[in-house]
Amino acid sequence: MSLQDALRDRAQQLRSELFDFLRIPSVSARSEHAGDVRRACDWVVEHLAASGLEARSVETAGHPVALGSWHGAGPERPTLLIYGHYDVQPAEPLGLWTSPPFEPEIRDGRIWARGAADDKGQLFLHLAALQLLMETRGRLPVNVVVLAEGEEEVGSENLLPFLERHREELSSDIIVISDSAMFAPGVPSLLLSLRGMAYTEIRVRGARSDLHSGAYGGAIPNPATELARILATLHDPEGRIAIDGFHDGIVEWDEEIIRGFDDLPFSEDTFRQSVGAPRLAGEAGRSTLERLWTRPTCEVNGLLSGYTGEGAKTVLPAEAMAKVSFRLVPDQEPARIVELLRAHVARVASPAVQVEVLDIHGGRPWRATPGGPGFEAAREALAGTFGREPVVTGEGGSIPIVPEFERVLGARAVLLGFALPGANMHAPDEWFPDAHIEKGIETLVRFYDAVGSPG
Amino acid sequence: MSLQDALRDRAQQLRSELFDFLRIPSVSARSEHAGDVRRACDWVVEHLAASGLEARSVETAGHPVALGSWHGAGPERPTLLIYGHYDVQPAEPLGLWTSPPFEPEIRDGRIWARGAADDKGQLFLHLAALQLLMETRGRLPVNVVVLAEGEEEVGSENLLPFLERHREELSSDIIVISDSAMFAPGVPSLLLSLRGMAYTEIRVRGARSDLHSGAYGGAIPNPATELARILATLHDPEGRIAIDGFHDGIVEWDEEIIRGFDDLPFSEDTFRQSVGAPRLAGEAGRSTLERLWTRPTCEVNGLLSGYTGEGAKTVLPAEAMAKVSFRLVPDQEPARIVELLRAHVARVASPAVQVEVLDIHGGRPWRATPGGPGFEAAREALAGTFGREPVVTGEGGSIPIVPEFERVLGARAVLLGFALPGANMHAPDEWFPDAHIEKGIETLVRFYDAVGSPG
Repeated sequence: MSLQDALRDRAQQLRSELFDFLRIPSVSARSEHAGDVRRACDWVVEHLAASGLEARSVETAGHPVALGSWHGAGPERPTLLIYGHYDVQPAEPLGLWTSPPFEPEIRDGRIWARGAADDKGQLFLHLAALQLLMETRGRLPVNVVVLAEGEEEVGSENLLPFLERHREELSSDIIVISDSAMFAPGVPSLLLSLRGMAYTEIRVRGARSDLHSGAYGGAIPNPATELARILATLHDPEGRIAIDGFHDGIVEWDEEIIRGFDDLPFSEDTFRQSVGAPRLAGEAGRSTLERLWTRPTCEVNGLLSGYTGEGAKTVLPAEAMAKVSFRLVPDQEPARIVELLRAHVARVASPAVQVEVLDIHGGRPWRATPGGPGFEAAREALAGTFGREPVVTGEGGSIPIVPEFERVLGARAVLLGFALPGANMHAPDEWFPDAHIEKGIETLVRFYDAVGSPG
Repeated sequence: MSLQDALRDRAQQLRSELFDFLRIPSVSARSEHAGDVRRACDWVVEHLAASGLEARSVETAGHPVALGSWHGAGPERPTLLIYGHYDVQPAEPLGLWTSPPFEPEIRDGRIWARGAADDKGQLFLHLAALQLLMETRGRLPVNVVVLAEGEEEVGSENLLPFLERHREELSSDIIVISDSAMFAPGVPSLLLSLRGMAYTEIRVRGARSDLHSGAYGGAIPNPATELARILATLHDPEGRIAIDGFHDGIVEWDEEIIRGFDDLPFSEDTFRQSVGAPRLAGEAGRSTLERLWTRPTCEVNGLLSGYTGEGAKTVLPAEAMAKVSFRLVPDQEPARIVELLRAHVARVASPAVQVEVLDIHGGRPWRATPGGPGFEAAREALAGTFGREPVVTGEGGSIPIVPEFERVLGARAVLLGFALPGANMHAPDEWFPDAHIEKGIETLVRFYDAVGSPG
């Protein structure tokens, strides 16, 4: 039986299994979901064990890690480390979902659910590919370690210590991660880069408590106004980040790769329409793909101060908060970026308020080197499944653990993603293309074969 | 029996009645409290009726008005209109109250509850003074109309039509309002001015829905950043409001009155410490009392955008909102101020976002003319009760209906308030001085007598 036939036979079963996984609201950022996060971990462990891998869940200081392994390919074959995450972003605001986030359903050729793309749906492709191979061949073409964590959406704080502690057990030659998107429908893609992250919270305090804006307004500092003034200094009029030293140490991209972006099937206007923004924005003198893939950003992710409910409340707030995060490019260091922000804020903030910059979490940026064995195996697998050569792209998002994996395990990573643009990974109505269940599994089987083939 | 003896006799009863009134959570801004607002209105009507006034509640397009009257003093005596409001500000954030906002209690010589000062507690002083006079003398020294509304904290939208519709029934010579504070403990005060109000909401929209800050960040407009940039333009570096035309038509104060502020028992440092702010702030070249009483303000009352919960969410928000209100001084017109703000925002906002400025509510500023009969009666009543001449002060807050009362009824208003500075009128831990129950009632009885005495 061909791979495609086997996939056709189990189409229903695959979706039923995936839906069970997606129904678990494994929101790692919310303490009230800790039990659900653990259930999702157990679900992964049971799936691996059912496929015939050795599997267990391992405690960390936070959410547990699901760990599986199979070394039956023998020492002469390489070992592939498959990394994914079973935790998901918060689903709020719930009212904006067309169907409930944790009740997956298929509409218009898409699977709709929180985690369908990021990353439960894509982690599941590996679990299903391994199961299929074990069931049909009784073995895998490579030695495999599977590591699924439950804290990717909150900064993977406990994963690095975990990698260091289990370095031997995780020893591998190639790392593969499916947590990204193809460039366009029908256009298989190889990811060359990930941006890093420095996530902060700026807190401004004025008076001890909220005050009447009439009785005190005009004579007492307003932390909301002061916060706005601080945020307004973070970019210059050209859209370039205006923090002293911020751009130091950035390694420019290969000019040829940047020029290659122009050949990609990409329309700025279609992109703009897809998100419904009046105009595009960003750093002057750069194309949209350059802005997204090759340039750092500074975004306000949240604002809160004073009264935000129905009607009017004439309050002079005591405090104001902004969540401000930076996407970073090689070789910006997250901790140094936070220090630069602190220095900037200290310089521009009014002395009439108290300002604090909290370092919430960070992750280093990453860039691949095309041509290595994992990279070429991925190229071959994608070409085989999709019938065309993959394009080389960048990615604006972050998988902070990727550069750490490489550093700790001494292996290179390959990013092989099957979501599509506009998947709403961190927004309401997240989705994954239904047809990519089969395409993804087929690609992964080809990839495992290519990595395992002596050559 | 002297007035003081009568008050001593009923000390318990007065507090028990007031506490019943304060326990009703009559939050006019919240639709879920509509029933409580109505209960508070009924409570006022019943109290007036029990004192022997004609009383009823009158429906409006919003919350009802409690109306009472007694015209037994005869046509040769003046008619006094007593205005107050039985609605209160929202109590949130609830966690910052030492005792629950709607469970009044006495601690440290203060009555703690939402509405204790603004304005249920002070409205109650009039109700109690009327009751005491009717019980002890069987009559009042003046003809009286009592009007208590339930929409003061949401802009008194339906009161002006009400005044116009009931103009005959409300016909009066002097209007008295107790909804303000004395300048300091033991320092009786006559209020010369109120600031007006223009309350707006600025809404900024970027993309159609929240987006992943990695996948889209750097290429899509960020409404939170754009909102911050708009807010940062509202003042110049000297703390002066930087909206074109904003200061046009402001009538400067009498220099002598401004100089008189310097004689008031006021310490900027004590004021600063009382609110716990690192420094004072405001328009350069003006004293704190000038800033509070004589100058307009622009304050951010609330900010909301994106993710504001626990942990980190890497979201690029679709929208951002600021509640922005202006305190106005004669003769700034609220509607014109909103138009100027709209023009300003249209000029400074990025074309990459959609910006809307909503006019939430407004009220005109007010200034008294010392020397009229109501003003002098108040001076005499305060001096008699407190044993010293009242000082003349301004007030930073707004009672938007005051100038409208004067205009529609053709009478002058007197503001006779008994709260104290720092009463937390729009903040957690609102309070009213316990001893001012008796002092307030005594002053009001003296005031009614003075207004009613043929002179």
